[in-house]
Amino acid sequence: MTIRLEHNSGTPLYQQIVEQVRAMVLNGTLPAGYRLPPERKLADALSVNRTTILNAYRELKAEGLIGSHVGQGTVVLAAQESESTPPATASRPIWSHYLSDYAGQFSQFQMNDLLDFANRTDVISFATGMAAPECGPAEALRGIEERVLTEDGGQYLMHSPVEGFHSLRVEIAGYMSQRGAYCTPGEVFVTSGSQQGIELVAQALLNPGDIVVMEEPTYFPAIQVFKAMGARIMGVPVDEEGMQLSVLELLLQRYRPKLIYTVPTFHNPTGTELSMERRKWLMALSRQYRIPVVEDDAYGELRYDGTALPTLKSMDSAGLVIHLNTFSKMIYPGLRIGWVVADRKLVDTLIAIRQVVDIHTNCLSQKIVERFVASGQLGTHLETVTKAYRHKRDTMLRALRQYAPEGMRWTTPAGGYYIWVTLPPGVACDKLLHRAERHKVAFVPGTLFSTTGQETGRMRLNFTFAAEHQIEPGIRRLCEAIRETVAQEPEGAPLVERNPIV
Amino acid sequence: MTIRLEHNSGTPLYQQIVEQVRAMVLNGTLPAGYRLPPERKLADALSVNRTTILNAYRELKAEGLIGSHVGQGTVVLAAQESESTPPATASRPIWSHYLSDYAGQFSQFQMNDLLDFANRTDVISFATGMAAPECGPAEALRGIEERVLTEDGGQYLMHSPVEGFHSLRVEIAGYMSQRGAYCTPGEVFVTSGSQQGIELVAQALLNPGDIVVMEEPTYFPAIQVFKAMGARIMGVPVDEEGMQLSVLELLLQRYRPKLIYTVPTFHNPTGTELSMERRKWLMALSRQYRIPVVEDDAYGELRYDGTALPTLKSMDSAGLVIHLNTFSKMIYPGLRIGWVVADRKLVDTLIAIRQVVDIHTNCLSQKIVERFVASGQLGTHLETVTKAYRHKRDTMLRALRQYAPEGMRWTTPAGGYYIWVTLPPGVACDKLLHRAERHKVAFVPGTLFSTTGQETGRMRLNFTFAAEHQIEPGIRRLCEAIRETVAQEPEGAPLVERNPIV
Repeated sequence: MTIRLEHNSGTPLYQQIVEQVRAMVLNGTLPAGYRLPPERKLADALSVNRTTILNAYRELKAEGLIGSHVGQGTVVLAAQESESTPPATASRPIWSHYLSDYAGQFSQFQMNDLLDFANRTDVISFATGMAAPECGPAEALRGIEERVLTEDGGQYLMHSPVEGFHSLRVEIAGYMSQRGAYCTPGEVFVTSGSQQGIELVAQALLNPGDIVVMEEPTYFPAIQVFKAMGARIMGVPVDEEGMQLSVLELLLQRYRPKLIYTVPTFHNPTGTELSMERRKWLMALSRQYRIPVVEDDAYGELRYDGTALPTLKSMDSAGLVIHLNTFSKMIYPGLRIGWVVADRKLVDTLIAIRQVVDIHTNCLSQKIVERFVASGQLGTHLETVTKAYRHKRDTMLRALRQYAPEGMRWTTPAGGYYIWVTLPPGVACDKLLHRAERHKVAFVPGTLFSTTGQETGRMRLNFTFAAEHQIEPGIRRLCEAIRETVAQEPEGAPLVERNPIV
Repeated sequence: MTIRLEHNSGTPLYQQIVEQVRAMVLNGTLPAGYRLPPERKLADALSVNRTTILNAYRELKAEGLIGSHVGQGTVVLAAQESESTPPATASRPIWSHYLSDYAGQFSQFQMNDLLDFANRTDVISFATGMAAPECGPAEALRGIEERVLTEDGGQYLMHSPVEGFHSLRVEIAGYMSQRGAYCTPGEVFVTSGSQQGIELVAQALLNPGDIVVMEEPTYFPAIQVFKAMGARIMGVPVDEEGMQLSVLELLLQRYRPKLIYTVPTFHNPTGTELSMERRKWLMALSRQYRIPVVEDDAYGELRYDGTALPTLKSMDSAGLVIHLNTFSKMIYPGLRIGWVVADRKLVDTLIAIRQVVDIHTNCLSQKIVERFVASGQLGTHLETVTKAYRHKRDTMLRALRQYAPEGMRWTTPAGGYYIWVTLPPGVACDKLLHRAERHKVAFVPGTLFSTTGQETGRMRLNFTFAAEHQIEPGIRRLCEAIRETVAQEPEGAPLVERNPIV
């Protein structure tokens, strides 16, 4: 079996594999019973990510051309088998007819091609939002895990309370207090990552039609949560001091939003920080209009310049701030430990909802994080990563200054994970993405972070995940791709009259 | 500080603690700054569960009488402090005004008293749905965990795909195939326990007003999920062969339910098993009416008598069965690993929803379970636990035969976790629960499992969690409590004319 991949063809790699294998099965080159190579082997042979092969095989299985049998691996199915598949398939339920309105709102897999591409081993990826694999406290965690296993008497194997182990909530309350946000363990609710915090808070507070105010642009999975709940999203533009509160105030006067969602510190995707003056103003507006503020503080501790500003939670005299946080950006995302700090009454509601959602967070991870925080290792680790990330950020900024084409601008974040780039005029993200794919460098198009989904001519670059030595060549390649896109761009788009179809 | 608890007073223990401490603070016995004993110490001193103390302290904090400061523990607040608290509290948001309709449907903490009581260390609990702590493969898991930590190169620290690691899904697909339900890894979706499977499937398929058919009685957190989605629940009675399908057929003819939810094997709470004939009939009805069947198979492998019946999934020629499963009942609930097997199209939808819900399941647990299954240890472990649980079941049945008062009946489950008891005529669960509390033995009232919430005169007894030597004395005490309740019961309730209040 010979497969040839064309990295610059514009056709996704997995699709190329599907087409070639399909042809070989249909024309008899691969006979029934032929064993396809295991995914990992084929991935290595073709120098692509295993996910690409997985997706290709998945598609071929769905077409009834190949099948996997335990112990036999993946084999080409006989013509009879594949003939027998279509009628069975034809009588299968058409699931789209069964889906709820809620489920229907997800445009599934819109990002799959980007994910396939960004995860390729030959690609330098500035597209993820992941911690650096090499800076992490993997060794320290391993030691802790071993102690949990031997010393905690199997407590991690049975249930924890819905809101999380009390001992972990004590540690988190202590950590919050150190950061100036005094709270009791009873006001802490442990989640499986902060995404679950957003989801649960939305379930607790939002009815369809409710208005949610967010930064424009903002963290896109939060947009998805609120939209899926049937909320109406209103975006407030961000400048170098964060959310423009004069716009927010107009919205509050004119509409009555149910919720304000904000990433005030090292905002995703722009990297900006809400200024102290605006923090006070935001709190005053929240109090005046009695509107809860969801503070997503995932990046708050990852500061590379300047001095810390207080969290909104620590300025929360009215009890209206719902603080969301996570260890995913500070330690590792695989731990899936986040938390909410909120008024005890709201925590009670989160408990009631969580009980039917998934009962509680993984116990072993809770115990690991508890010991990591209690031992004081979180502080030491944060010093290590902020040093490493500052260095990576500076490397990326230096490379941008060196290679950026004319007309390109970018933010200089004082912390967090991201640089927000404004592309030269006329460069659209989707075109650039295709070019960048040929240059084997990945980013996230700004469109994704827009509450309205409009093309913005901006992109998000992550500087934490890629290895230090990849940053300079990655930015060089990316800037070449941008130059090529600029050169390609016509003077002005041809005028198209959009006549309605009647 | 002296606290006296009265176990038979009818007032929950935590409430007794609250009242006594409150009095001591208000009358000055405990001065401002007085350090209350740490929770664990007080719990030991009073021989109660730590949760009881936790709840008491929580309440006292909410009242502004005590506060906890990091490094100082829990202290009595000065009068000024407690005086300053009320105005602050008064200006706090009234969260019930902010809650969504969805959140408003949860009657919070209805079970809290039962949970406090059932978790007391001096109580024999037949109320949980937990695996036996002593039978588990704790040692084997520890060995596996150590290997994951050293051999898997930190893969468990970063993200997994939304649907779970491919390697785990291969193992689960293999396991399902061994049980006769052939499926591909692409049809397997890993969840954080099977509760999350119910929640995600409900989100994927249900609109408000949709009809869901369930067994009556049934697993109550499933009732809660469907009700919270705004679904209309229709219950179908269960007899010794499982769900009464003649009733189901009438419902299908008359209404068009969106979903049938069933626990066909070792049903929770009745312990019954859907007969082979009825399995065929149910599948025929599902096909005829094109209605998806959610098969909750959490207990399917825990068989103590007879030979295995096929899962509905393995009889699913129409692709309409959505199979839910979990390792919580087979191994340990703290792992939080469950799975869904469904048509690939539906799995795609679950992936899209999960991406905004909590992204994916804990990576370390995924890796642990993967290795446990791959190594063949699951099979060995199931042999061990079925032997142990058969023994515990027989001990409980023997004790019931020995101590049960006249007029009491119970099921003899061929597998699973539960015996379903019909109380002597006239014995209501709520009264019995108070009596049982005095006798220090816990059960779950049947009312909880009713789709309509009606008093049923039935109770669920779990025989897996309590230690072997506790089962006989527990049943003896419970039967004494029942006898006392019978004796107490008047001949007939006095007639009350319910005049409307106008």
